[in-house]
Amino acid sequence: MGTTTVALSELIAALGGDLLGGSDLRITGIAPLDEAGEGSISFLSNPRYRAQLATTRAACVIVAPAFAEAAAARGAAIVTPEPYLYFARLTQWWAARTRPAAAVGVHASAVVSPEAQVGEGVEIGPLAVIEAGAVIGDHARIGAHCVVERGARVGAHTRLAPRVVLGYGCCIGARGLVHSGVVIGADGFGFAPSSQGYVKIEQLGNVSIGDDVEIGANTCIDRGALADTVIEDGVKLDNLIQIAHNVRIGRNTAMAGCGAIAGSTTVGANCTIGGAANIIGHLNIVDGVHITACTLVTRDITQPGAYSGAYPFEENSSWQKNAATLRQLHTLRERVRALEKK
Amino acid sequence: MGTTTVALSELIAALGGDLLGGSDLRITGIAPLDEAGEGSISFLSNPRYRAQLATTRAACVIVAPAFAEAAAARGAAIVTPEPYLYFARLTQWWAARTRPAAAVGVHASAVVSPEAQVGEGVEIGPLAVIEAGAVIGDHARIGAHCVVERGARVGAHTRLAPRVVLGYGCCIGARGLVHSGVVIGADGFGFAPSSQGYVKIEQLGNVSIGDDVEIGANTCIDRGALADTVIEDGVKLDNLIQIAHNVRIGRNTAMAGCGAIAGSTTVGANCTIGGAANIIGHLNIVDGVHITACTLVTRDITQPGAYSGAYPFEENSSWQKNAATLRQLHTLRERVRALEKK
Amino acid sequence: MGTTTVALSELIAALGGDLLGGSDLRITGIAPLDEAGEGSISFLSNPRYRAQLATTRAACVIVAPAFAEAAAARGAAIVTPEPYLYFARLTQWWAARTRPAAAVGVHASAVVSPEAQVGEGVEIGPLAVIEAGAVIGDHARIGAHCVVERGARVGAHTRLAPRVVLGYGCCIGARGLVHSGVVIGADGFGFAPSSQGYVKIEQLGNVSIGDDVEIGANTCIDRGALADTVIEDGVKLDNLIQIAHNVRIGRNTAMAGCGAIAGSTTVGANCTIGGAANIIGHLNIVDGVHITACTLVTRDITQPGAYSGAYPFEENSSWQKNAATLRQLHTLRERVRALEKK
Repeated sequence: MGTTTVALSELIAALGGDLLGGSDLRITGIAPLDEAGEGSISFLSNPRYRAQLATTRAACVIVAPAFAEAAAARGAAIVTPEPYLYFARLTQWWAARTRPAAAVGVHASAVVSPEAQVGEGVEIGPLAVIEAGAVIGDHARIGAHCVVERGARVGAHTRLAPRVVLGYGCCIGARGLVHSGVVIGADGFGFAPSSQGYVKIEQLGNVSIGDDVEIGANTCIDRGALADTVIEDGVKLDNLIQIAHNVRIGRNTAMAGCGAIAGSTTVGANCTIGGAANIIGHLNIVDGVHITACTLVTRDITQPGAYSGAYPFEENSSWQKNAATLRQLHTLRERVRALEKK
Repeated sequence: MGTTTVALSELIAALGGDLLGGSDLRITGIAPLDEAGEGSISFLSNPRYRAQLATTRAACVIVAPAFAEAAAARGAAIVTPEPYLYFARLTQWWAARTRPAAAVGVHASAVVSPEAQVGEGVEIGPLAVIEAGAVIGDHARIGAHCVVERGARVGAHTRLAPRVVLGYGCCIGARGLVHSGVVIGADGFGFAPSSQGYVKIEQLGNVSIGDDVEIGANTCIDRGALADTVIEDGVKLDNLIQIAHNVRIGRNTAMAGCGAIAGSTTVGANCTIGGAANIIGHLNIVDGVHITACTLVTRDITQPGAYSGAYPFEENSSWQKNAATLRQLHTLRERVRALEKK
Repeated sequence: MGTTTVALSELIAALGGDLLGGSDLRITGIAPLDEAGEGSISFLSNPRYRAQLATTRAACVIVAPAFAEAAAARGAAIVTPEPYLYFARLTQWWAARTRPAAAVGVHASAVVSPEAQVGEGVEIGPLAVIEAGAVIGDHARIGAHCVVERGARVGAHTRLAPRVVLGYGCCIGARGLVHSGVVIGADGFGFAPSSQGYVKIEQLGNVSIGDDVEIGANTCIDRGALADTVIEDGVKLDNLIQIAHNVRIGRNTAMAGCGAIAGSTTVGANCTIGGAANIIGHLNIVDGVHITACTLVTRDITQPGAYSGAYPFEENSSWQKNAATLRQLHTLRERVRALEKK
C-alpha cells in the first residue's frame, strides 16, 4: 500500500464532503489521529479525542461541521455530517484501489461438479469443492479450500474466504462475506436419551442466511432440526460464535466474538450482543436489546434496553473474600432480616 | 425433501408403535406441532405443549399412551411409550430415505498413501489426505479436505465431515460422527518456564476416542502430554469445545457448545455440561453430575447432582448497582456482624 | 514409540544432569510418577508429589538436589536444579528421536505460485496453497491444506500444522508453531452504523507475529483496521482464542484456551491469562499481570498482580438462593445502612 498515492480532490470526487484547503495534497495512507504521519488522512469521530486535532501530523482530517474550524486551522480538512461513516466508505474506496482484482474463473485444481450451476464473473479458488446442485451467484468469490455441498446456494457478489464449509441445502444471500474456518450447516446438537445411551435426532433442516451478512472466522451456524436456522439481512457475526439449531437472528443485529445462542432462541432486529455473551435456548429477545460482554441471558427479554450479568473483577485477594461471602449471601440476608425485626 | 411421501403404514412397519387411524395417510414431512402442515407428522413429548394437540394441523401425532385419546380425537396418532425417542428414530429413518447414498470409493483428487489401510465400502472425498499407516475402517466416510495423519485410525461406519484433522497416532472408534473443522490431536498446551522464556514440552501422547461419539464443528481435542487424552463410548460434544491434554470424559456424557475442560481433569459418565461451562485442570468430577451453563468448576465434585455458578443477568443499571456493592460484600458482612454484636 | 530404547548415559550426554546409578539402564518411555512402568523415566517437580517417589516403578527419576538422596535410594536418578525444565528438554529430545523426519520438498499436489519465494529445506505438504509474493523461510514446514496468501511471510524453522490460513500481508517469525485450524488475518470486526444498516470498515492492516510463538488449534487473530495487530516474541496462545484487531500482546505472555482480547487492547509482557478469560477493548494491561480463568477485565490494570472475577460455583439450589439475593444486593446494603443509623 505504501506506493499508493491519491489526490484529495480525487477522493472528494468519489466520496463527497467539503474540502477545506489542501486541494493539491496527495495522501499515502489512512491512520488514527495519534499515529498519522505527514501523508496520512485521519478522522475525528469521538469528541473525546478532540485534543488530538492540535497534535496530529495528519495531512487531512475528516471532521463534523462542529470541528471544521479547528481542523482547518491546522491543515486540510474534509467536513461531513458523519465522519465515522465517511471513514468507513473511505476504507472501502481505498481497499478497492489497493487490493488485487479478483482472479475471475475457476482454478484448474478446483473440483467443480458438472451439475453445479456457476454464474457470470465468478472466482473459484484453488482446491475448492463445489458439489452437484450447488448454485454460485454472479460475481461470487469462492476461496481456496472451500466446500459448497450439494444444493447449497451462494448469492451474487458474496465472498467466501478460503476454507469455508457451506453445508448441503444451506444458502447465503447477496453481498455476504464469510471468513475462513466458518462452518455453516453442521448438525444441530440433538439427541433423545434412551436406556442404551443417546439416540441421534437427525437434523433435517438447513441454514438460511440473508443478504449483506458478515460471518467471522471459525464461527459455526448449525442446521435446523426440522425447520431452518435463520440469519436475517444485515446481521454481523464476529469470530468463534456458536449459533445453534433453529435460532433466528433479526435484521442488522451484531454479535461480538465468542458468544453463543442456544437452540430455538429468537433474537430481534437491531440488537447488539457483547463478546462471550451467551443466550440459553427457547427464549425470545425483542428488537433493540443490548447485551453486554460475558452476560448469560436466561429469560425472555421483552423490553428494549441494556442488560448485563458479568461478575466484577478485582484484585485476587479481594475477590476471594467477596466470593466466599457471596456463597453465604442468602444467609446474610436472613441475618439482616432478623436484625430488622428486633 | 418436499417430494418424499411415505405411507404411515410403511413407517409403522419400520419403527413400530400403535397406529390409531390414518392407515391410508401419506406423510410429506416432520414438523413441530405448531408449525406442522397438513402432510406433516409431529410429536408430543413435553406435556407442557399438550394444548397444541387441539390446534395443530399435523396429519399424525406421535404420543404417549396418556395422550392417545386426545390425539386420536383430532386425526391419526402413533402411540408409543417414549414419543421423543420414537421421533429420534423417525428422523433417522427419514434421513436414510431422503439423503443421497454415500459415493463409495476414493475420489480421484484425494491423496491416499499406498501405505494406508483402507477398508471395504469406504468413501474418501475430494482432496482428502490419508497418510502412511492410517487405518480407515469398513464403511467409514472421510469427507472432502480431511487430513488423517500417519498411524491414525478411523473405526467402521464412522463419518468425518469435510475438513476434519485426525492427528498422527490418534484414533476414533466405530459409528462416530465428527463435524467440520474439528481438530483432534493438536499439541496440549504445555511449557516449562525458564529464564529464556517458555520451553516447549513436546506432547508425546495421543487422543483415544471410543465408539458412538459425536463431535461438533470446530471443537478441539488435544493430544496427551505423556499418556493419552481419552473420550469414552457414547460421549456427545457440541461445537467449539476445548478438551485439553490428558482429560478423560466418561461414557455417555454430553457437553453443550463453547465449554472447556482443562488439562488432566476427569469427568465421569452420564454427566451433562451446559454451554460455555468451564472446568479447571486436575479435578475429578464423579458420574451423574450436571453443570449448568456458564459455570466455572474450580474444585472436585464428589456427589452427583446439579451445580451452578453463573451471574444472574438483569437490566444494566440494576446490575451496575449490585455489582458495585458486590465488590464490598465482605465489608458488608463485617458490618452485619458488628450490628449483631450490639 | 514402544520400540525406542535409549541408554541413560546417552540421555545424560545430550541433556546434562548428574546421573546417580543406572549407567547401564535403557529407557523405553517417559511417564508421570504414578503411571510409570519399569522402563520409564519420570520426574519430580512439584514437592506435593514427593510421596510418589517411594511407590513409583520408574527406572529413573529426574529430581532437584533436595530429593537426590530419596530418589537414589529407590533406583537411578538424574539430579538437576530445574527438573521440570529438564523434563521439557527431554520431551524435545525424545520427540526428535521418535518422530519421522520432515519430508523436505514440495508435494506434487500443492499449488505453489511461481511468484512465491521458497527457502532451503522447506516442506510443503499435500494440497497446500502458496500465493504470489509469499515468502517461506528456510526449513519452514507448511502442512497439508494450508493457505499462505499473497505477500504473507513465514519465518525460518516455523511449522504450520495442516490447515492453517495465513492471510495476505501477514507474517510470523522464526521457530513458530501454528496448529490446525488457525486463522491469521481475517478481517477485524468493524462497522459504521448508518440509516441503511452497518457499513463495513475495510481492515487495511495486517497481523505481525514475532519469533518463538505457538498458536493453538482454531485460534483466530484478526488483521488490524489501519495499523497491525501485533503478537510479540515468545507468546503462547492455546486453542480457540480470539485476538481482535489492533491488539498487542507483549513478550512471553501466555494465554489459556477459549479467551478473547477485544480490539485495540494492549497486554504487557510476561502475563498469564487463564482459560475463558476475556478483556474488553481499548484497555492497557501492564507487564506481569495474571488473570484467572473466566474473568472479564473491564478496566485498565496498572499494577502487576493477580486479578479475578469468576462467580463461585455451588450446588444448584444454594446458587439459586444466593443469586436471587444478589439481584437485591444494593437494597440489602441500604437496609444495613438504615440499621446502622438506628
